[in-house]
Parts: sequence; C-alpha cells; structure tokens
Amino acid sequence: MVDDPASRSTILTGDRPTGPLHLGHYAGSLRNRVRLQGEHDQTLLIADLQGLTDNAGRAADVRANVLEVALDYLAVGIDPARTTIALQSAIPELCELTVLYLNLVTVARLERNPTTRAEVELRGFRRDVPAGFLCYPVSQAADVTGFRATLVPVGDDQLPMIELTNEIVRRLAHLAGRPVLAECRPLLSDTPRLPGVDGRKASKSLGNAIPLSAGPDVLRAKVQAMFTDPSHVRASDPGRTEGNVVFAYLDAFDPDQDGVAALAARYREGGLGDVAVKRRLVEVLDALVAPIRDRREALARDPGEVLSIVRRGSERSRPVVASVVADVRRVFHLDDAIGA
Amino acid sequence: MVDDPASRSTILTGDRPTGPLHLGHYAGSLRNRVRLQGEHDQTLLIADLQGLTDNAGRAADVRANVLEVALDYLAVGIDPARTTIALQSAIPELCELTVLYLNLVTVARLERNPTTRAEVELRGFRRDVPAGFLCYPVSQAADVTGFRATLVPVGDDQLPMIELTNEIVRRLAHLAGRPVLAECRPLLSDTPRLPGVDGRKASKSLGNAIPLSAGPDVLRAKVQAMFTDPSHVRASDPGRTEGNVVFAYLDAFDPDQDGVAALAARYREGGLGDVAVKRRLVEVLDALVAPIRDRREALARDPGEVLSIVRRGSERSRPVVASVVADVRRVFHLDDAIGA
Repeated sequence: MVDDPASRSTILTGDRPTGPLHLGHYAGSLRNRVRLQGEHDQTLLIADLQGLTDNAGRAADVRANVLEVALDYLAVGIDPARTTIALQSAIPELCELTVLYLNLVTVARLERNPTTRAEVELRGFRRDVPAGFLCYPVSQAADVTGFRATLVPVGDDQLPMIELTNEIVRRLAHLAGRPVLAECRPLLSDTPRLPGVDGRKASKSLGNAIPLSAGPDVLRAKVQAMFTDPSHVRASDPGRTEGNVVFAYLDAFDPDQDGVAALAARYREGGLGDVAVKRRLVEVLDALVAPIRDRREALARDPGEVLSIVRRGSERSRPVVASVVADVRRVFHLDDAIGA
Repeated sequence: MVDDPASRSTILTGDRPTGPLHLGHYAGSLRNRVRLQGEHDQTLLIADLQGLTDNAGRAADVRANVLEVALDYLAVGIDPARTTIALQSAIPELCELTVLYLNLVTVARLERNPTTRAEVELRGFRRDVPAGFLCYPVSQAADVTGFRATLVPVGDDQLPMIELTNEIVRRLAHLAGRPVLAECRPLLSDTPRLPGVDGRKASKSLGNAIPLSAGPDVLRAKVQAMFTDPSHVRASDPGRTEGNVVFAYLDAFDPDQDGVAALAARYREGGLGDVAVKRRLVEVLDALVAPIRDRREALARDPGEVLSIVRRGSERSRPVVASVVADVRRVFHLDDAIGA
C-alpha cells in the first residue's frame, strides 16, 4: 500500500455485479476495504450499468447479482455505518456526467485503452463491441470524479482508467481556465493477483474462481482441481512452487506464513505430495470462508434489509454527484442557459 | 410530405444551437414546422448537448446560440402554445436513456453511419473524433424515443438516424420479449436542399448561408455573391438555371412561381442578365425576411421571456422522458433492483 495514513481521503471502489465475488476479490481488494473503512471516507459502488455494457442480454442476472455482491460486502465485514454502499443505476447523475465527459475523450483514445483491448479480446467481441463497452472507462471516470474520490484502489491493470480520469479532470481545468475537480491517485494493491484454480487469470466468466460463498464441498473440489506442478508426479519428486496455484493461495491466506515457507521448502526439495499441501489449503480456506459464509447466510434471510442499505447509500450519494454535475455543467456553460 | 393528415402524431425535431438558423433551415424545415404545429403534437428540441459533441471548446457560443435559435423559432411563427420548445441539457433523463442505449449499438454500427462519416470528414476529425460525436446518433435516438415521437421530419441524409432509432426500439422489444416503445417514421421534406451562396452545401461552419436574421445590407451582399452560371458572361448569353443558386432561392421563396418560370425560360434562352434576377431575389428575400426580422427584434428585447418559454417547455417535457426512462429501465431489470 502506497498510502499516507496521516491524511483522510475519499475512496471509490466497487464491483460489477456480474457474478458472486470470489477469493481473488477477497485477497486483492475486499480485505483491504475492511481495513480502509476505518481510515478513509469509502464508497463501494455496485456498478450495474457497467455490468450491462457487455451483458445487455443478461440484465436479469446483473440485477440478481446486486444483492449477491451486497451480501458479499457485508459478509466480509464491510460496515455500512463506515462505508457507503451505493448502486450505480440508482444515481442517474452519473449518466449525465458520462455524457458530458464523452465530449472530452476521442474514440482513438478509448480504442487505445489497454484494459478495454484486453477485455474485448477476452470476450471475443471483435467488431461487435457494444458502444457502451468502448465507453465504460469514461463512465468509470464519471464514477470516480462524481464521488469526488481522490484515492482509488486498483490493480496495476486498471492504471489506464486512473490516467483517463485524470486526463478528463485536466481537460476540464483547461476548458474552464481554472481547477474544477481534483485529480485522483491510485492505491496499488501489493498483493499479487490470485490465479484461478487452473492457473489462468481468475474470472467469473471462466468459472475458475472460488466464490466467497462456497460451501465446504465446493471448497474441497476446487482445491482438488487446482493446478500444481505437472512434473511433480510422486511425492518424492522435487516440485515447483512458482506458478503452483496451491502455494499461491497458501501465500495469500494461510495465517501461519512460517509454516507455508517450511512446506514450500520441503515441496521444492521433494518428499511432500500435493495431497498434503492441498489438505492444508482446505483447512485454511475452511477457516477463512466458514465465518463469511455464516454471516452471509444470516444476512440473506432478510434481503430487503440488505437492499435498503444499498438504497440508503445511493440516496446519500446523489447530492454529492449532483454537485459535481453542477460543477461540470458550469464548465460547459450549461448552468444558466435558460435560467434556474 | 408523405404524411397522413388524418391522424395526429407526436413530432420531434430541432436544431443544434451552433449558430443562428439560416434560410436553408427556413425552406427545408422551419416553415413546415409552422404548418405542422396545427396538425400534430410537436416538440422542437434545441440540441445543445449534441452541439457540444464537436464544440466542447466553444461551449459559451453554444450557450449563446440557445437564445438565438429560440428567437428564430418564435420569429418565424412557432407558437409556444401549440409547439413545445425544449432544451436538451435541461432534460437530464435524456442522458440516462443515451447511456442505456449505448449498450444496444455496436461501435462498428456507429462507425458505419453514413451521416456521421460525412460529418467526420467535413470537420476534418480523422482519428480525433470525440467519443460523444461518434455516439451522437444514439443520443438522437434517445431524443426521438424519449419524447415518444412517431413522426420525425428529416432530410434524406438523416434517414440513417431513423433507422438506428428503430433498430434500438426493436432491440428493446427483443430483450423484453414484448413491444416497449413505438417505432418512428420519417417525414421526408419534398423541398430540395437549399445550397449555400457558393453552391456548396449550406453550412453554418462554411459561412455560406444567409442567416434568418440578416439585415437588408447582408441580404443584398449575400445575393450579390451568389454562384450563378460561370459561362453566362453577357446578358445576351444563354444561361443555366440548374445549379444556379439564385434560381434555387427563387424556386424556394418567390411567391410568384409563374414569374420564376418565365424568368428561368428567358435566362436559359439568353437575354436576361444576373443583375436582373438577383434584383428580383433581393426583393423576394426582403419581403420574406423583413417581418421575421422585425418580430425577432421585438422578441429580443425580452430575452428572459424567451428563455422562460424554453424553460417551461423543458419542464413540461421531463415527465414524458422520465416515463420512457422507466420503461427502458424495466427492460434492463433496473426498476426494482433495490426497491422503490
């Protein structure tokens, strides 16, 4: 974390509700958010409009996952008294900001965006990229600036989004001839990205992630299926721990990191089988996930209460975003065109 | 006009406030709108957000032209009691609709749009097309459907916009499994497009148009500068009337069309000089423009009243557009995600 704990910042982060959150989210962001909510003004935005940019035909799923993501947040320890949970589509002011920002970014700039390019490839869009998908980094810039966020927790693959946001902020300042909105800075996670069980990038769409809400049987099956070292055939063979998914998860989650170092040394020397390290990982994940799962099940009994937390958070957020819209409209001389 | 006068339709049309309206607008649309306001429910939308898509750096001009366009409307005889005049940026619901529609259109589809392609070329954008400019046909679809318009007066160069709008309407119906919004049909003008004084396409940006608010001296100078027939050197030479801007304007505006036919015949035979036909055109335009100019000057004395007409029209329009947003949000399952 390259964060200055002395100063209180406004943080915006969040997730697309396109599936339940998984252990990769927990390692990479959720557990940091639980820590950050004590130190900063934090909003978690459930980005359902962004989710629709490549799921227009799966809107019912996106809608259903709003509750799932909110449950995941609360289950891992996000405290709605200290963190605002808001829903993107419940803040229409964000759309107005997006439309205004589209005038400040060229098509070529959006097509160059490395994050979008990688995702276009992953989704096999080719020429059929929805316009909303090409433009979603502009919508993210609207989110970040709309909440007046100055600190944005990201993985390094999302740095282009921060750059684009700050380009828009500078373009507004240039048009206005004075500063309008604050630039934001990334809060880079120092946790390596947790791979999927098959060793590829963990992704809801690839189905290679372990959901936060996984039951004991799913946990065990996912760990059984984990990619280790294909050349480590007998327990007595020396094994590789780099690129070994079981060790990646132990590194991320085992509270006994000295024990992990000892296991890894034995594994590399030879004499430790996959069965033994996987057994340890199942123990670790069970201990981590069981209380999350229990809280989640308890919360899920009253979905109305969970959704009303999101509704109240969204309502509380609207005036902030509306004030940013007013600032940006002023730059475009839209504030007084026909009187108040 | 391919219009069925028996049935009352909802019409949406309008203008980008990027400059005062000109005689081409009058011939091609404004005088039809004056007629249509008796027959249909008509809204004129001053499309300032669309104007910003290629004028982000000239926002103060766009803002100033909102009043100019409203003055032009009222001066030519638009009656605010029978036609709603509304301002695009005063109806933020249109932005929400635009953002939702961006999910239903591919980038390739927008890049193929012949109107946008021609305009990109005209503006010399090359790779620097603002994203908002590429997307503005989607914003137009939001305007048309947002006002529940079923009849859209257009020139034939704008037919691709109608097509795109109806594609979006059909895509919504497909997603919902039932009709959601009505398709619209074009009301094609039967008036040939009036050229600029230089014979090229009349355009605010080329400065080759005659403003509706032109004074007598400007009118005379513009007519003097009109392109006629370069091979018609002496009055006794036979002259061409096709492609001759003076005759295009006489065809469009001279109330004595038999007289125009006689003039044209003499011009083609030889024996009629440019000076004589231009003198007739100055008379005709003076008679047309003088009352418009007088009404415009009277109205311009109370800009606050003019802008309040636009404000009231915009306020009256918002519930209609909001009801369309609600219909479209329902298709995307956004209506009840977190309760009312």
